[in-house]
Amino acid sequence: MSGSGYDDNNIFAKILRGEIPSHRVYEDDNVFAFMDVMPQAEGHTLVIPKTASRNILDADPATLATLIPVVQKVAVAAKKAFDADGVTIMQFNEAPAGQSVFHLHFHIVPRKDGIAMKPHSGTMEDGGVLAANAEKLKAALGQ
Amino acid sequence: MSGSGYDDNNIFAKILRGEIPSHRVYEDDNVFAFMDVMPQAEGHTLVIPKTASRNILDADPATLATLIPVVQKVAVAAKKAFDADGVTIMQFNEAPAGQSVFHLHFHIVPRKDGIAMKPHSGTMEDGGVLAANAEKLKAALGQ
Repeated sequence: MSGSGYDDNNIFAKILRGEIPSHRVYEDDNVFAFMDVMPQAEGHTLVIPKTASRNILDADPATLATLIPVVQKVAVAAKKAFDADGVTIMQFNEAPAGQSVFHLHFHIVPRKDGIAMKPHSGTMEDGGVLAANAEKLKAALGQ
Repeated sequence: MSGSGYDDNNIFAKILRGEIPSHRVYEDDNVFAFMDVMPQAEGHTLVIPKTASRNILDADPATLATLIPVVQKVAVAAKKAFDADGVTIMQFNEAPAGQSVFHLHFHIVPRKDGIAMKPHSGTMEDGGVLAANAEKLKAALGQ
């Protein structure tokens, strides 16, 4: 059935299982954060729960309770790390709302004055740039 | 100083004090939700804390903890009430990130397949339409 259920083979599930690499910036027992490989702006980061949730529509409220403090910490740290003027947070539920990976995630996009966000699915960023940005963000997070 | 502090005369503070009207859909001790008067799609709703927070960058984590369960409930109810195919959630921090009212708020936008969101600050919706949409959403929320 379209629009429901959790597919354990989605790319974020594979990242959580360590089957494919990611540029990790934060991890605790419940939450994982890493650089978006197709950033809409420099420092674009994703925060996801370790539990299997398709999106906010099916998530356990307890899962959200562990996620939101990390979303906030990453937003504050990303603003500092990338010398940003603001932070856009987005969370998409189902494909017509912009969701392309069906594991609950929050987008955290550092923004600069006068610079528009790039499209949601744009160009793959260079791995070296992502690694350097992950280090900057980890430093700002005190990791 | 630009980009910091809380101005008690922002429009959402006035709504919370009852100084200007709003199409309320939910209220508890900590949280208030109402229809956006310039909806980006039918059923566009805002969820705000009653405490004075400029945005997520200065919010008390305890404030966020009370807010997020309501964001989730409104997202689920709005999808149902407006027969939507998905829900886009956005939260803007500082003007370069899209914030126009400097009281912490989450946008909850029901989405339909193939229909793009309207711009952030578009046309003022008819009051009768907003009132009818508020009733639909309240019914779905069990209010």
